[in-house]
Amino acid sequence: MKILLKNGFVVNVFTDSIEKSDVLIEDDRIIGVGRYESSDADVIEDVSGKYVVPGFIDGHIHIESTMLTPSQLARICVPHGTTTVVADPHEIANVCGVDGIRYMISASKDIPLNVYFNLPSCVPATAFDESGAELDAQSLFELYSEERVLGLAEMMNYPGVIYGDAEVLKKIKDARSAGKVIDGHAPLLSGKELDKYVSAGIQSDHECSNVDEAKEKLSKGQWIMIREGTAAKNLWDLLPLFDEPYNRRCLLVTDDRHPADIANEGHIDNIIRLAVENSKSAVVAIRMATIQAAQCFGLRCVGAVAPAYRADILVLNDLNTVDVRDVYSSGKKVVDNKKMIDFASPQIPQKLSDRVYNSFCTQYISVDSFYIEPKSRRCRVIGVIPGQIVTDELSFDINWDKDNGIDTSRDILKLAVIERHKGTGHIGVGFIHGIGLKVGAIASSVSHDSHNIIVIGTNDADMAVAARHISSVGGNVVVVKGEVVADMPLPIAGLMTDLSADEIAKANEFVRKTVYNYGVFEDVDPFMNMAFVSLSVIPKLKMTTQGLVDVDAWQRVSLYID
Amino acid sequence: MKILLKNGFVVNVFTDSIEKSDVLIEDDRIIGVGRYESSDADVIEDVSGKYVVPGFIDGHIHIESTMLTPSQLARICVPHGTTTVVADPHEIANVCGVDGIRYMISASKDIPLNVYFNLPSCVPATAFDESGAELDAQSLFELYSEERVLGLAEMMNYPGVIYGDAEVLKKIKDARSAGKVIDGHAPLLSGKELDKYVSAGIQSDHECSNVDEAKEKLSKGQWIMIREGTAAKNLWDLLPLFDEPYNRRCLLVTDDRHPADIANEGHIDNIIRLAVENSKSAVVAIRMATIQAAQCFGLRCVGAVAPAYRADILVLNDLNTVDVRDVYSSGKKVVDNKKMIDFASPQIPQKLSDRVYNSFCTQYISVDSFYIEPKSRRCRVIGVIPGQIVTDELSFDINWDKDNGIDTSRDILKLAVIERHKGTGHIGVGFIHGIGLKVGAIASSVSHDSHNIIVIGTNDADMAVAARHISSVGGNVVVVKGEVVADMPLPIAGLMTDLSADEIAKANEFVRKTVYNYGVFEDVDPFMNMAFVSLSVIPKLKMTTQGLVDVDAWQRVSLYID
Repeated sequence: MKILLKNGFVVNVFTDSIEKSDVLIEDDRIIGVGRYESSDADVIEDVSGKYVVPGFIDGHIHIESTMLTPSQLARICVPHGTTTVVADPHEIANVCGVDGIRYMISASKDIPLNVYFNLPSCVPATAFDESGAELDAQSLFELYSEERVLGLAEMMNYPGVIYGDAEVLKKIKDARSAGKVIDGHAPLLSGKELDKYVSAGIQSDHECSNVDEAKEKLSKGQWIMIREGTAAKNLWDLLPLFDEPYNRRCLLVTDDRHPADIANEGHIDNIIRLAVENSKSAVVAIRMATIQAAQCFGLRCVGAVAPAYRADILVLNDLNTVDVRDVYSSGKKVVDNKKMIDFASPQIPQKLSDRVYNSFCTQYISVDSFYIEPKSRRCRVIGVIPGQIVTDELSFDINWDKDNGIDTSRDILKLAVIERHKGTGHIGVGFIHGIGLKVGAIASSVSHDSHNIIVIGTNDADMAVAARHISSVGGNVVVVKGEVVADMPLPIAGLMTDLSADEIAKANEFVRKTVYNYGVFEDVDPFMNMAFVSLSVIPKLKMTTQGLVDVDAWQRVSLYID
Repeated sequence: MKILLKNGFVVNVFTDSIEKSDVLIEDDRIIGVGRYESSDADVIEDVSGKYVVPGFIDGHIHIESTMLTPSQLARICVPHGTTTVVADPHEIANVCGVDGIRYMISASKDIPLNVYFNLPSCVPATAFDESGAELDAQSLFELYSEERVLGLAEMMNYPGVIYGDAEVLKKIKDARSAGKVIDGHAPLLSGKELDKYVSAGIQSDHECSNVDEAKEKLSKGQWIMIREGTAAKNLWDLLPLFDEPYNRRCLLVTDDRHPADIANEGHIDNIIRLAVENSKSAVVAIRMATIQAAQCFGLRCVGAVAPAYRADILVLNDLNTVDVRDVYSSGKKVVDNKKMIDFASPQIPQKLSDRVYNSFCTQYISVDSFYIEPKSRRCRVIGVIPGQIVTDELSFDINWDKDNGIDTSRDILKLAVIERHKGTGHIGVGFIHGIGLKVGAIASSVSHDSHNIIVIGTNDADMAVAARHISSVGGNVVVVKGEVVADMPLPIAGLMTDLSADEIAKANEFVRKTVYNYGVFEDVDPFMNMAFVSLSVIPKLKMTTQGLVDVDAWQRVSLYID
């Protein structure tokens, strides 16, 4: 079928120009840009006065962080003009390994969003972690033959690169010899260490937080991904990169973005809009979000309104506000006057579906599981910092006589991380300060990067109920006070739901309201903070299934100080 | 081994800037750009006051047109700073088919010039031609697994693309599905026809002769190759493409360039120099000749002085005159203070060597082979136009009574094209005007694109001697007057020699002097003109092994007019 977009202002990302022109589409491809007649096509769309631009590309996203399946994510991000994403399925890989990656590939097949993958390079993230799977070089290598796998995702283990860890180097070598790209992740790395890291063939970075850092990396050949997610926001600091010649080697990414933020503020369109509000050229920002992202990943014939290119096309009511009216994805109209046209979610092979919906294996969790032996009066306590994923190492005198050390009057709560992949019964238990919970317990199956069960509570009984509930339903975020009072289901690997963004937003809202009612401080995001309390690559004091880790010292430490 | 280039002015093609910096090389890769200590390396090269730039890339070259083997070409073009070429072995493929291509791959292995290949898309060039081989889609497909094969070369058959010739489309589809690039060749194609051609996935053009043509093609996503060869010179007309934003989608190529021009005037360095002389930025021109060529072909980590990049590096005494002092190719110093360091030519597998050195198979060529039956007084005569490859269609009254129609007083010479691949005995004989030869005969085994034997003579006896000589020695350019008086050997497929550029220049000079002594007009390049008299895709009247072809009418025509 041929579709003719008639009389639009077409943004040309090769010449940074806008020209009044028609665009002819046949099947999934653009076949003409210029003057065409209505008789040339089966369907004519009048786009007079509208802007016709290439669909946006998000160069680095963790779909799991949106808690949505690829289909449900498509339903909120495609209406914002994102037609292509490059996803790193790092979270689900930590839970389900290669099966998790294959699930994501299946779950993103033939949907209105074109989903490519870079393979998670660091599963598990550290040796302190007990994840559901380990991805060695061999298991990654076998996935490179998958059509939509572009390369190796953010190589976070930069010490491993710099000091030549054999397994790390093998992963990199395999990617290079398969002709694949390798994305970087090396915050503030500079000088000779950066040279070593880049020399391995790591050709992008999305962790730049200042313009000097970005310019150094760019001058060394790395593509700079300007990130504006929910927690990490780098756009403001990197605004000078929208100028020549830097913009030529930059693209736009979200990394981790909350579904409510996507639905309400937007996705890549939001980054372009913010750049324009800061006096940057809309056409240049669109170029960065389209053809340049495609160049970074070696995607041919994607990212421009030109013959031979995949017909991922947006019709905008207005250029500077990036007001998306219609979206064509691979030649199909998928958004009509701001409304997503319904589509069927992909069929998932039964084996993969069974695997991701049944990712929990725990021993029975009783009240006694949370008991802490009172070995010393003074104990290490994790100190939560509102809005940050780093933590403090605090110390408190524990009053063991009452509630096994829990003391809500001093905001000393109990914290546990329960191994949930292999039924080892491992459980790390300790104390946390800075949450504010006064009654009950809260728990989640999202706890980076290994996604064991994390529970914070005011009493062991509610903690046990919460943890058992998570395990029995196969993943969620839950609030317990005697019984379950609020619940956000995440049955896919304990990370995602097949609910819509709207439905999950409502469940999320109710859970949040409940915990704030139960005393959690207003400036604490309980789930974000909870989700990173177990991430043993971020300083300072973190809890794992086998107890506390001092990240700065890169070693386990005792709960007890004496 | 580690080499440190100390204190140079390093040209950064990512930021269009020049910075004083050290460059650290290990084996074939750059591993550091910044401040390094002498203790970091095994060899220190002081390049204070010199410019350090990436090695140049020629994006489209027919090596056979230089008459040199890849090794001998390297000896003249690497000292001019070209460290990478993308070659289309179209000529040798017309003679020896896949074996010819495999010979070129073997003959360019591990030499100081990095030679990549795009596969000839149109062998034979037309159905009028009798070539030594036909390359169908299947035989091309099998070559895509070769490491240095990047894609499909200049798709000259644009009518075949536009009107959907099945075999042409299959070649294109195979290249795309193998993830390969497809180069174009479509002079003056525009508008809807250009859209159709580009829609097939043809992503470059090197035939642009005016800036509007180039801008249209560029705006439709094609990379524009700015060509400055020996015959075809487009630089002057395309100078505006060196400006932003056009320069971002352009690269520099030579296509067909005579070895003497390379040795004397230069190669890609010459194009950069000419651009600078015309007030264009040297840094931008260098960027076009390096990283952008690499981007066009999807060559990763080639074309920049940056970590991870292949250490193809030039040390220039002066930037604007592109005065090359030293050249590093894949990390090895190959030119030292303007002198090429000697290297061994590659070993060629015996089978391939035998094939290309024994490419002639002809029936016995006698004086009678050239006899023309006097069927009509008025005959069609090919009219040579000095310096051009198009010809006129002329007509003369032939005086058959003397010398079977040859009449040097009116410059009516005899012309023959003799099938030489399969011993069919096919021979096309007719008349040519505009050469000026007064005595003897001249002949060549270079006659585009099928490279049969072409002979022009003042008498049948000398023509027979010349043609037999070519066949017996396996290819050359020869001048005969009773016996062989001048000879330039081309024993490799009748197209190339393993002599050095110097030696072939001397032989060529002697041949030229001889033919001019024998009366050839000074403004005629006898060999260039002779080489294109049989190319039945260039208007107007051409000679093939089976007689005259009217290219405009796309049909064979009779010698006789009545």
